[in-house]
Order: sequence, then structure tokens, then C-alpha cells
Amino acid sequence: MNPMQAPTQTFRAIDVIRKKRDGGELSRGEIQSFVNAYTGGDIPDYQVSAWLMAVVLRGMTRAETSALTDTMLRSGEVLDLSSLAGRKVDKHSTGGVGDKTSLVLAPLAAAAGVPVPMISGRGLGHTGGTLDKLQAIPGFNVNLSVAQFRRVLETCGCAMIGQTAEIAPADRKLYALRDVTGTVESPYLICASIMSKKLAEGIDALVLDVKTGSGAFMKSEEDAAFLAELMVETGERMGKQVVALITDMDQPLGCMIGNALEVVEVVEVLRGEGPEDLRQLCLELAGWMLHLGGVSPTVAEGKKQSEELIASGKALDKFRQMVELQGGDPRAIDDPKRLPQAHHTMILSSSKNGYLAALRCEQVGTACVVLGGGRERKEDSVDPAVGIVLHKKVGDAISAGEPLATIYYNAEARSARARQLLEESYQIADSPADEKRPLIHRVIGKPGETN
Amino acid sequence: MNPMQAPTQTFRAIDVIRKKRDGGELSRGEIQSFVNAYTGGDIPDYQVSAWLMAVVLRGMTRAETSALTDTMLRSGEVLDLSSLAGRKVDKHSTGGVGDKTSLVLAPLAAAAGVPVPMISGRGLGHTGGTLDKLQAIPGFNVNLSVAQFRRVLETCGCAMIGQTAEIAPADRKLYALRDVTGTVESPYLICASIMSKKLAEGIDALVLDVKTGSGAFMKSEEDAAFLAELMVETGERMGKQVVALITDMDQPLGCMIGNALEVVEVVEVLRGEGPEDLRQLCLELAGWMLHLGGVSPTVAEGKKQSEELIASGKALDKFRQMVELQGGDPRAIDDPKRLPQAHHTMILSSSKNGYLAALRCEQVGTACVVLGGGRERKEDSVDPAVGIVLHKKVGDAISAGEPLATIYYNAEARSARARQLLEESYQIADSPADEKRPLIHRVIGKPGETN
Repeated sequence: MNPMQAPTQTFRAIDVIRKKRDGGELSRGEIQSFVNAYTGGDIPDYQVSAWLMAVVLRGMTRAETSALTDTMLRSGEVLDLSSLAGRKVDKHSTGGVGDKTSLVLAPLAAAAGVPVPMISGRGLGHTGGTLDKLQAIPGFNVNLSVAQFRRVLETCGCAMIGQTAEIAPADRKLYALRDVTGTVESPYLICASIMSKKLAEGIDALVLDVKTGSGAFMKSEEDAAFLAELMVETGERMGKQVVALITDMDQPLGCMIGNALEVVEVVEVLRGEGPEDLRQLCLELAGWMLHLGGVSPTVAEGKKQSEELIASGKALDKFRQMVELQGGDPRAIDDPKRLPQAHHTMILSSSKNGYLAALRCEQVGTACVVLGGGRERKEDSVDPAVGIVLHKKVGDAISAGEPLATIYYNAEARSARARQLLEESYQIADSPADEKRPLIHRVIGKPGETN
Repeated sequence: MNPMQAPTQTFRAIDVIRKKRDGGELSRGEIQSFVNAYTGGDIPDYQVSAWLMAVVLRGMTRAETSALTDTMLRSGEVLDLSSLAGRKVDKHSTGGVGDKTSLVLAPLAAAAGVPVPMISGRGLGHTGGTLDKLQAIPGFNVNLSVAQFRRVLETCGCAMIGQTAEIAPADRKLYALRDVTGTVESPYLICASIMSKKLAEGIDALVLDVKTGSGAFMKSEEDAAFLAELMVETGERMGKQVVALITDMDQPLGCMIGNALEVVEVVEVLRGEGPEDLRQLCLELAGWMLHLGGVSPTVAEGKKQSEELIASGKALDKFRQMVELQGGDPRAIDDPKRLPQAHHTMILSSSKNGYLAALRCEQVGTACVVLGGGRERKEDSVDPAVGIVLHKKVGDAISAGEPLATIYYNAEARSARARQLLEESYQIADSPADEKRPLIHRVIGKPGETN
């Protein structure tokens, strides 16, 4: 625009900001220059946060989203797992309350011969995080180097760690800025953040579990489907097989919420027990992982195979092996008493007869955070022992005086507030609901393929 | 939203950002807390730039705009000029090319008995700035303290200085951030920036000159009118009389562009000479200033009175007096040779016969910047001697070989590029245009009052 500057400078951060502000489509080169300059410390936070807000409010095209994902992915190390036999598959969930499927799926798929290189995150806000759950197992080390990660993966077929400094550093820097500037809530930015990290794992295929409902980040199914389509398309543009399942998070998944408690429930599922919703979702996701991993001709076949691996104990053996390889105490798998234990329990009982009509899921998650089981700020530490066990799920009949939930706690003051939040989250109706929300709302990607 | 944080914190910057991002209306208290926290250094640039972008894209209500203006105004000193007799009136222009009316108006209104406490800015980009023009007068000091400013004002009825550190510090900080984050172009933010500074001058009334056309920031009349209405309403909400004239900036105002050259043209107008468009605009604006200042019953009367003050030499005497009181050499007023002189001149002639159909105004301004007469970046210094004198204005008949403009320059290399820009900005047609753009497009505010 300005004839005085054109000849000397080829990239100006402000031009990229203005273009997006005015609703223009950024070129791949503009996105690369902008993001790489930020990662390299050449443009300041305040320019990037203005740009992020413009992206939140103006959106991005599919081409922009995939250029952003690609730039973030290439900002760090991209694992090359081609020396490892088999199609590498991972699963990612957008987060919810009581969602412990990753701990079931990694060993389950690995037991079927599908390598799972899983890099996960911590819990924040009302949702839990895979790393916090793993760390409830005494000794379990989630901070492996890339070399150690590869060794565990080669030995047992799955490995679960946290994001390392080498993986997608652009995402780390951008996410930290988004977190404090009100620019988290954009499907385009969420997609780029998730997909850049996942594709850096060196996988061939990815199963996405996009949550919808009162406990999910995407409350409406429409928003969840939009994000799911975006991620599927972005992954496909980058040459990966991607499928997304829109699944229910209107009430917690399973019955146990809290890090050590969730490990207990994971082991139950791996033993062929555990709550039906959690078990079914694990089998569904595993079916897709096995299918995309090339070991099952169909998803239905993959589910069946997964059931067999559970029934034979092979999936649990794999979990035990991974725990041991990552420094954890495998005895904690078979003896839950070896997991961190809360000092006190308290039962919340129903004051009336009826049917559980709804459970305000986000509030249940918050109750667990209040107990110390999650973190409000990134720097908070987590108490692995505390949590909540639900005795009733939506649709269940309830009699007055019957226990609704048990609260596992260590601090009296926290338990009172958690109890209040939990109590308020129950909606008990006189008659049962007409309709039950499905566990799987829809499947996006891979059309024609059904279970 | 989060039950864990509500009791301990009353204001969180991120909540204000999110609320504006989602299109909500911020309360006066939220705007005050946010802006004051920024001015006080309690919230970082990166949060404020995200908020600014949300404001650019979501807009503001009238109540929000006036709360923002008020907060910025109260962030620093608000002059109390109540001890000075008369209604204090100022004029502000949104900026253009060759717009030197402030230098005519301050002494002219003061000569009529209307005190003019004028705090002005520097030129940036293609537009010139009042301070740069004043500083072309040898010795003229625009950096008076508030006490000195008041003294000059009391002695001669007008004083012209730059923004001091005491006036609206919130605006200084916000403007610097907007400048580098693509968040300048918002009528709400422009309104708050202008009005907070102007209302800090302790004035009773304000005449706004909102430019429209190819050389203005607001190219379309619609955008100019929107900004004008916003500023008028904001001023009125704060108890001031405000009128806005939408005036033409589709070609440069007057014939001279460049700091010392513009002082020459100012003196011409104060002598009753000078180009007709500049002269007419000055009289129109002066008419309003005198009327709002309470010395003329109507605007028409104010114009007539202004013409008399020019004819009698009283307006020029007042200019001479102000220059002297602010340390400038008053002899430069009567002897233009005492103003900075360019070493070289070059004439741009027409290559064909016809009529001047249009003059790309922004490009003419940029040509002057290229010569060194303006600044691209805030830290650039300015050469007061260089500039352009236009010999033809839109609508004029032109013969091949006739001079279109004279370029005053000091550096050969710069003159070649400026000449090219200037040459390209002329559009010569075979026949005269049917319609001439009016000088005054419309008047906003004070309905019922006409000249």
C-alpha cells in the first residue's frame, strides 16, 4: 500500500494482522512467516494476540487452517516412526469429565498389534487430563525423552507421554498466549493446536473423540460437528486417515472421576467389567483404531477383536507392561490399595424418590477440581487421591435416602464446597425421561464405513 | 462462570476481553477497570491488543464509547480554564493533505475574543501535522508546560502546543499499541482518542472538521459521517457543545504542502489572500467557532466578523503575537525568506491539454513525505523546507507544457521518486467534469442552526 516501504520489506506482521482483520484470506507464506517469526521471538505477543482475536472473529478458510496446522507442526520435531512395523494410530479426545478412554485404548490397540504413540495433555478447568491420571500410578514417568518414548513404543507397542519441548513449540507458545487473551474458543485455532501435535507423533491415522453436551467444551452438537469436520479435513489434507466420533458428554463418562479412581475404573474395563457407557465407548473407539491400523477389515471386526483381547487378559497385560516400562509400579494395577488413597469419604444421598433426569456435567467436574483433583490454573498441583464415585447415572430410578455419590476427600473445607456443587448438579424428576441421549451421536469422515 | 474464582476477584481482564469478543456491552465499571489497569501497568499489552481487536470487529455502543472517552480523559490532567473569561472553543481536524486551517483559526478566533487552547499532534503517514508546521517557524516552542500554556493563553487568547505527558496518558499508551497492532481503524477508538484529548483542554465547545475523500482517513462520506455523529454525541454526553463539518479532502486543501510552505499560505489567508478553498473553509470553521464561543449570534455573523478581523489585520497581529509568546521569530511572518528554504526547485509540467479531473490526494501527501516533509515512522525527523506547490486544482484548464506543480527539495534522490508519485497522481481529462465536489459536504450536530 505504501510505496515507500514496499521495496525494502517483504513481510510485515501488521499487514498480516490487518488482512485478517478485514476478513481476507492469508496465503500459506503469510501464515508461515507470521507464525515462524513469533516462534523465533521476532514479533511480540501483543501483535500475535491481536491477530488471534481477528482469527477468532473472522475465522479461517480450510486452506488457512491447514497452513497454520502445518506451520505449527513443522515448528518442531516430527517423529519418524517408519522403522516401526505397522500403521501407527492414535486417539484424541477434546476433553470431558471422567473420560479415561486413552488409558484403556493405548494398551488395547497395542495388544492387537497397532502401535500407539500417544502424546497427551494435563487437565485444565473442569476436565481431567490423561497425564494426571497416569501419574496417579506410583512411579509412572510421563516425561520421557523422544528416544525413551521410541524405546517403550518399540518394546510394548504403546507409550504415553506429555508434550515435549521438541514437539510443536509454536503451539506451546501460541496456546499460552491464547489462554490469557480470550482466544481459546475458535474451532480453527483448536483444530490447528490439536492436529499439529498429533501429526507430529508420526502417526498414519487418528481417531478423534469430539465431545458434545453440558460437560464438553463444544456444548452443542453443531459446534462439535463443525470442529470434527475441520479436523478430519485438515488431517486428510496432510495425508492422514482421520475419523471423528461425536460422543456424548452430557453426564460424566463412567462412574469414577478423580485421577487414582479413574485408573481403578480403567483396570475394571480392561478386565471386562466397569460401567457400560465407558466400556461401549472404548470398544467403539478401539474398533476404529484397529480398523484404521489395518488389523481389522471392518470397525465391527475391530470391536470384536478388542472384546477378545480384553477377555483373554492380553489388553490388561499390555497395560501392566507399559506401566512397568515407564517406571510405574505394576502391582498398583492389580491391587488398587497401592494407588493413592483419600483419607475420608462422604456419601451424598438423595432426599427424594424419582429418576435422575440430568447431571450438570461441568459442575461435577468442577466439584472434583474443588476437592483438589484438578487444576484451575496451569501451575496448580493435583491431589491424585480425591474424587467422586457416582452411584447413579441419568435414567436411573432413585429412592429417597439412597446414595447418589461418594466423595473421596482429604480436606474438610474443600469437601463442603464440593458437596454443595455436586448436590446442585443432580436433577431428579418424578418420571423417567422419554428419550435417552445416544452415546455416539455421529461419525464424521470415512463415509460408507459402518460398524 | 467459575464458582471457584468469583469470591476472591472482582475484576479479571480476560472476562472483559471475552465479553467484548462475544459481542456483549461492557459496563462503565468494566471499561474503567480495564483501561485504568492498563494505564497503571497492571495488565499487559497482549491482553489489551486482543481487546482492541475485539472492539474493532465488534464495535461499541454509544454508552461504551462515552465511558471509554471519559476514562481516557480522566487518566490524566483535565485543564481548568474557568478563571479565563469567555467560552473556550477548539477545532480539531481528522487530518489531510495541505490542511493548515488550525494555524489560521486559533489566532482568528482569539482576535474575536474566543479563547482557543489548542493541543495538536504531529504528522504521520501521508498527512501533515499542526506541530510540524508550527515548528517550521524558527524558534517556535510547542513543548510548553501546562503553566506556560495557560500564561500564553491568558496573554493573547490562543496557544498551540503538543500533547503533554499529563494529558490523557491512557490515550498515549493505547494509541502506541493500536499503531502496531492493526487496531487504529475503528471509529469508536478514534472517537475516544480524539475526544479524550480535546475535552482535557478544558473547552466549552468544539468544532470538528471530519475529512472525507481520497486524501482522508475516512474515504467515504458515510464513514466520515458515522465518526462525526459518534464524536458529536460523545461530546454532548459529556456536556460540551460539539458540531462536526464533513469537508472535502479529495484533493489537497489550498496550494501549498510542506511545513514552511504551509506557514506561508497561512499568512496569505490571514492577509485576506490565499487560495479560495482554504480561505472559505477557514471562514466557515471560524464562523462556527465564533458562534459557539458566544461572540456571534449566528454562524453567518461569525463568518462576517472573521472576514473583518482579517481585513483589519487583527487576526494576523494575533498570530504574530502568539508566535512571539511561544518563542518564535515574528519576523518570519512578514518575511517568508526567514522560514526554512529548500535548496532546489523543480517544475512538473503537463504533457497534454485538458482539464484537471482528479488529483490522487493521498499520493500527493506521500510525495511530500518522500521529499522528507513528513514522517513514515513516529521517530523520523522532518525537513521543514521541502514540499510541493500546486499550480492547478481540480477543474482547472491545462495547456500542454504548463506547470502543474513546483517541487521544493533538498535531496536529488528523493525528488525523483516524489516527482514520479506526483506525476502519477494527476488525472487530466479532455473535457471539464460535470460536477464539482462541494467543500462542505454536511454539518452534523446543532440542527436548525445554519449559516
